[in-house]
Amino acid sequence: MHTSFDPSLPPPTIREEDCPFCAIAAAHPPFSPIDPPNPFPSNLTAPQSFVVLSTPALIAFLDILPLSHGHLLLCTRAHRPKLTDVTNPEARDLGGYIRLLSAALVRATGIADWNVVQNNGAAAAQVVPHMHYHLIPRPEIRASGRYRESFTMFGRGQREELDEDEAEHLAEELRQQIAEILREEQDEAESKPPKQKL
Amino acid sequence: MHTSFDPSLPPPTIREEDCPFCAIAAAHPPFSPIDPPNPFPSNLTAPQSFVVLSTPALIAFLDILPLSHGHLLLCTRAHRPKLTDVTNPEARDLGGYIRLLSAALVRATGIADWNVVQNNGAAAAQVVPHMHYHLIPRPEIRASGRYRESFTMFGRGQREELDEDEAEHLAEELRQQIAEILREEQDEAESKPPKQKL
Repeated sequence: MHTSFDPSLPPPTIREEDCPFCAIAAAHPPFSPIDPPNPFPSNLTAPQSFVVLSTPALIAFLDILPLSHGHLLLCTRAHRPKLTDVTNPEARDLGGYIRLLSAALVRATGIADWNVVQNNGAAAAQVVPHMHYHLIPRPEIRASGRYRESFTMFGRGQREELDEDEAEHLAEELRQQIAEILREEQDEAESKPPKQKL
Repeated sequence: MHTSFDPSLPPPTIREEDCPFCAIAAAHPPFSPIDPPNPFPSNLTAPQSFVVLSTPALIAFLDILPLSHGHLLLCTRAHRPKLTDVTNPEARDLGGYIRLLSAALVRATGIADWNVVQNNGAAAAQVVPHMHYHLIPRPEIRASGRYRESFTMFGRGQREELDEDEAEHLAEELRQQIAEILREEQDEAESKPPKQKL
């Protein structure tokens, strides 16, 4: 289902049991983001999925038709068609992890600019009806004259299939950067002087 | 500064004291989203701003160059250039309020499909360097043959200035829908049977 967007086709209808994101979530139990499994199994689904985060509520993995190197998806573990279908705790978790994944993505790719995009419904170019945030690195292409192209985000022919060796390496780097950032923030929180009691 | 995006111009540099979003935040103290001021002052800034949410950490208002009717922005009250500059509590608040604003926007506009977009850096089409999420309703335009156009999200000539009377009415409707949803969720939480103690 997760193919190029074709506006001439009817909007997709996917039953929960056929949802590709539910399949990825079901194959990957939660792990601690600060201590990810290493080596990490990337052969738990067909096609392979490259998971970088898996919590009780959320899961994040590389897009199999990336718009750029590092294109990541973050979704709820439960099948929620649109953002308005998620619970408030899930929405808050999504908000927190988008920040963390953004920071890890900048470090892992070396690309300092990126878009966060979340599409709800066919008229908004949602293809897989299980809510997900896209994180899309944007290399500086001003010099190459391809500037405008970069904003055709969901058109035909913009996307190439993920290279599996490259993806495996990138996913590993992302899991390590996520863990590293969490350790740094933990250290920072611990090194602050405790608040004086009044 | 908040004008059409022109890729031939250099990336914007704005000092914090000149930031238009900081000016809106400074003019609008926090109010309770479940009990918003009514009537609401929309003349606190020049140009007028149409604020729908103002908390200690966040502020949301109508985009003055909307891509569609209802185009909303949600940003941190503090000046944070990119999403990676926000604190984790701010990021979690952003996540929670994007869900609430989405639900209010669907009710207020009657448009069931929408995009959430957050741009970081000039290469990602960020214009105002104070991080913000866009919420952009997407009316069903498949029938009109303008389908592809809707995905040119930040090009020149796509945007018209906000009509102030219409904006005032829409902002009021959004504040009321936000309050209504919060009351419904409060009622729902209270009507659940309390958990049995083990």
